[in-house]
Amino acid sequence: MNKPERIEGDTVSTMREMGRRARAAAAELALARPDHKDAALRAAAAALRASSDAILEANEIDLDAARSAGRPSAFIDRLTLNRDRIEGIAKGLEAIAELDDPVGATIAEWRRPNNLKIERVRTPLGVIGVIFESRPNVTADAGGLCMKAGNAAILRGGSESINSSRAIHACLKDGLREAELPVDAIQLVPTTDRAAVGEMLKGLDGAIDVIVPRGGKSLVARVEEEARVPVFAHLEGICHVYWDRGADIDDAIPILVNSKMRRTGICGAAECLLVDKRAPEGHLAAAVKALLDAGCEVHGDADAQAVDSRVKPATEADWGKEFLDTIIAVKTVDGVDEAIAHITRYGSQHTDCILTECYGTAERFIKRVDSAIVLHNASTQFADGGEFGMGAEIGIATGKLHARGPVGVEQLTSFKYVVRGSGQTRPT
Amino acid sequence: MNKPERIEGDTVSTMREMGRRARAAAAELALARPDHKDAALRAAAAALRASSDAILEANEIDLDAARSAGRPSAFIDRLTLNRDRIEGIAKGLEAIAELDDPVGATIAEWRRPNNLKIERVRTPLGVIGVIFESRPNVTADAGGLCMKAGNAAILRGGSESINSSRAIHACLKDGLREAELPVDAIQLVPTTDRAAVGEMLKGLDGAIDVIVPRGGKSLVARVEEEARVPVFAHLEGICHVYWDRGADIDDAIPILVNSKMRRTGICGAAECLLVDKRAPEGHLAAAVKALLDAGCEVHGDADAQAVDSRVKPATEADWGKEFLDTIIAVKTVDGVDEAIAHITRYGSQHTDCILTECYGTAERFIKRVDSAIVLHNASTQFADGGEFGMGAEIGIATGKLHARGPVGVEQLTSFKYVVRGSGQTRPT
Repeated sequence: MNKPERIEGDTVSTMREMGRRARAAAAELALARPDHKDAALRAAAAALRASSDAILEANEIDLDAARSAGRPSAFIDRLTLNRDRIEGIAKGLEAIAELDDPVGATIAEWRRPNNLKIERVRTPLGVIGVIFESRPNVTADAGGLCMKAGNAAILRGGSESINSSRAIHACLKDGLREAELPVDAIQLVPTTDRAAVGEMLKGLDGAIDVIVPRGGKSLVARVEEEARVPVFAHLEGICHVYWDRGADIDDAIPILVNSKMRRTGICGAAECLLVDKRAPEGHLAAAVKALLDAGCEVHGDADAQAVDSRVKPATEADWGKEFLDTIIAVKTVDGVDEAIAHITRYGSQHTDCILTECYGTAERFIKRVDSAIVLHNASTQFADGGEFGMGAEIGIATGKLHARGPVGVEQLTSFKYVVRGSGQTRPT
Repeated sequence: MNKPERIEGDTVSTMREMGRRARAAAAELALARPDHKDAALRAAAAALRASSDAILEANEIDLDAARSAGRPSAFIDRLTLNRDRIEGIAKGLEAIAELDDPVGATIAEWRRPNNLKIERVRTPLGVIGVIFESRPNVTADAGGLCMKAGNAAILRGGSESINSSRAIHACLKDGLREAELPVDAIQLVPTTDRAAVGEMLKGLDGAIDVIVPRGGKSLVARVEEEARVPVFAHLEGICHVYWDRGADIDDAIPILVNSKMRRTGICGAAECLLVDKRAPEGHLAAAVKALLDAGCEVHGDADAQAVDSRVKPATEADWGKEFLDTIIAVKTVDGVDEAIAHITRYGSQHTDCILTECYGTAERFIKRVDSAIVLHNASTQFADGGEFGMGAEIGIATGKLHARGPVGVEQLTSFKYVVRGSGQTRPT
């Protein structure tokens, strides 16, 4: 082939070729038997366990580079693999194999007066492009989920985890090969050239049906700017807990502390507490004390500062900030409507919670807060596909189209209408 | 206001202002009571009837301009209003009022082992931009459907129908006003400047959540090129009928003729007949004769030409062509797999049909044809939201995300997860 766009090593041609292969693999995978897909997932899990040494060696190369580059410890932690984490990734693939196959499932069916039988049947989406950052486990999680839903995946991991991702990807390919499914069903972008991301966002000549970006603000901004194909937006989780005047203090404190402190680095972690000014005397102080005692730094408004000397003054920058750390912003508000207004202004439409025993107020909050997940008297950390009973997830979508909230195998499918007739024609 | 972007009459500032108003109206409309929305629809229908004279006058201005511009008769027909058509538009709004309100409906609910109760509840999408061409009735149909689903709509009709659209839009505003809903819930772009379309495709500064384009190839191409917001794609309906060796000739002929000839100008009209080479002797000739006798021009391959001298030779350009006229392309294929391959190559993933009594072959076709609607032994002209029992529709989406197939009120909604707890925290 002498065409200039096919020059070996050229990112554009490499990416387009990946797109063509993904498209071909998707056509095959859409018709694959459920047991074959599950066998591929289980074989990949076995390959991960058998290849632990090689994976850890590859991970060590990435870790050395990250340490030399002076990356922060949270970054190093996200990047680090060990035997437990590899076992966790393998178990994750086996858990995906256990899920019901979504493809071909009838979501709805009805019969028309003319006896046409109409079914809405799940189909794969096609080719999914996943762009992620430093966590190498996303290679397996995202690849496995896309494949289970009958889709081909093109995965583009962060350059910092490329060696780890490649080692994991080799196991996924082993699994596909063993189950006699097309190995192109899960492809990993081989280059760390950032132009590859741009090519994916342009859709690889129509080969990509949807992009799933998993990463920080700069990736999200780039996707918003450049994407020419549909995106399942995964914005930050700027989750609020609103402590209403009707809150039960004994229930509310554990929920609040769990929402903030169970794990601070996940998108469902609370970042802001809003306390009703008319909450009973002592509620605000108790809430703030519980957070501080749990080891959380509190940035509060004047009211919050007044109840505990350990509270630092909040600035405008604290509202709507995703700390992903042991820090929370605390503000008093004039009832549920001001809480809703604050969430509307500063939230990210991800997950928000109201603490109250007053069901009318709860319903008002539930109806008016326009977030993917709205909770009443339960921890924001339940914002998770597994906790929802949906199995593994690729993330929590904050957009309103197609997938909103946890994106699991069902959200990675489309549907078609199947109409079964017996000679019906449409009257003129 | 002295800021340059607010200069009166400037398209960019006009459009952005429409976006801001739509966003505000959407927030209000999302919480509107079902009976108020239905009252607005019924009042708009009454206003349409009461304003028939004014609407017809406005339409006459558009028609004069179209005639002077030498527009073809099909164009003039789409543009023309008369008392019957106005009554039809009014009845359409009343039919939308009769539909169940989708907002707030619980789509799914389940309880987790920890007793969390999770519900998936329909919510409005937000602000919908509808870009359409010459049919003035779309103003009422699209505006009414968006509003029923709790969304604000920004409608941009073709410049050729601007006077008619304005007159209809005035009635919609009357309806909103009468029901005390925000009149900005349904806005019509006042300018015929094509830059307005570009602004909508850019999303009006984040004000538009989704674009619904209803128009021909040039509009679709422009949308694909320029859109920075999600789009419910409405491509052409290049619908195929595959006549299998297992077809029952007595059932098949009426379905074929109805698919092509009931109405030729709609997206569900068949454009290509594929006949199995192993169909019984006489099937091809009977199919071709039935079409010709019904007044259809047939562009056929060599086999089709051989059965009837009236058949004209097909060229490559006939495959995958949306005639929207009394013309059909006819080709013989080597069984269901070649039919599927032809449809995959030339179809538009809209609506395709198989005629056969062999259920195994039908299932193969149903599973492998990747179209929004796949029919077995029924006319392609059933590709219609009303015929599906979904009520009025804004069109048939050919994309795979969010809305596929008929786009009715339910497809114009999103959803949120409502999680009701009683103090649950997530275990560490």
